[in-house]
Amino acid sequence: MTTTEIKNNDFKDVVFNRQSVREFDPNFKIDPAELQAMIDEAISAPSACNLQSWHFVVVNSDEGKAKAKSVLMPFNHPQLDSCSAMIFVLGDTQSHLVYRDVWNKACEEGRITPEKRDQIFNTFLPMYEKATPDFLKMDATIDGSMAAMQLLLVARAHGYDANPIAGYAAGKVATTFGLDASRYVPVMAIAVGKKASEPITTTRYAGTQVTEFI
Amino acid sequence: MTTTEIKNNDFKDVVFNRQSVREFDPNFKIDPAELQAMIDEAISAPSACNLQSWHFVVVNSDEGKAKAKSVLMPFNHPQLDSCSAMIFVLGDTQSHLVYRDVWNKACEEGRITPEKRDQIFNTFLPMYEKATPDFLKMDATIDGSMAAMQLLLVARAHGYDANPIAGYAAGKVATTFGLDASRYVPVMAIAVGKKASEPITTTRYAGTQVTEFI
Repeated sequence: MTTTEIKNNDFKDVVFNRQSVREFDPNFKIDPAELQAMIDEAISAPSACNLQSWHFVVVNSDEGKAKAKSVLMPFNHPQLDSCSAMIFVLGDTQSHLVYRDVWNKACEEGRITPEKRDQIFNTFLPMYEKATPDFLKMDATIDGSMAAMQLLLVARAHGYDANPIAGYAAGKVATTFGLDASRYVPVMAIAVGKKASEPITTTRYAGTQVTEFI
Repeated sequence: MTTTEIKNNDFKDVVFNRQSVREFDPNFKIDPAELQAMIDEAISAPSACNLQSWHFVVVNSDEGKAKAKSVLMPFNHPQLDSCSAMIFVLGDTQSHLVYRDVWNKACEEGRITPEKRDQIFNTFLPMYEKATPDFLKMDATIDGSMAAMQLLLVARAHGYDANPIAGYAAGKVATTFGLDASRYVPVMAIAVGKKASEPITTTRYAGTQVTEFI
């Protein structure tokens, strides 16, 4: 894991002073290697059965931004126009098939025994292989959301800011980026860049209003 | 926001050395006020339109643990038995109705004008009020997952460890805790406590395998 680019290691500042920034310096570019490093760091997030049901489309070219614009609601165009990159986070509803392939390959290459492989396969995989599309969509959405949350924080730790975006034509996202819409479900888009103006400060309901002890 | 209990403020350590801990010291209790503080901190997470579609049920009594056990799959019972608290994170699919109530009350109390209130109501609320149950479920699930991710990190910053859990009878969670199942959707359970044994180290696929640049 590359963590060499962490400029702000103050947990409280990164987490509690995070705000959704919607206007970025349009001339500021983030190196693709650093964008990849940020994703590598974000996927230290946990996932159900470690299936890692997430997928990322990094939009950082003019051509990519034109595609992104075609799915984003107009009020999110300013973030797209000014950000260094917009990262679409999707959920992968077929991650359990990937998992099966990975362990079959390990077995074929003699790295694990067939018995060990079958033991792995017989634990939770059947639950996924028999699951409904709705279950797989929810599962992948939760994994993707957790990685997305970490990406928002990692962006700040790298000295940048971000805006998580839900305002897009969800049904068009995967196909617009050349992905199989029956496999990948959109979770959110994240605009990342160098802050150009102070954002609106939002507040939260008191935690006690949304918590009960039993 | 209470951040006085943050014992570990090292962002890299909190985020990148987080692991799913499944065995806790059964004699160690976390003060309910600190559990509430951790939730208060976790809900600094963003949410779609700041609707804050999350809800938390903190299980820290014997009676509560018995209820939790009735919905958890048996392989997650050890975490329940040994943790200081298990926090069920749910999504609130009616957060837009709460939002409407909050602003109506502000208007009735003269804190904002009817014109300002209507301006607030006419932006995104109609989108939610006309939304399908599936949209509302996904939206609440994403909000809840982001708060849950922050809760996992905040637990570590407080010097504890945690295990996010998806293995439960999802359809029974809300009703078991006396919540309206047509309103609240389960997102995950999080066992929190003092680590009693080193967990299994998991690995991730390379980030480049799940990322594409366009």
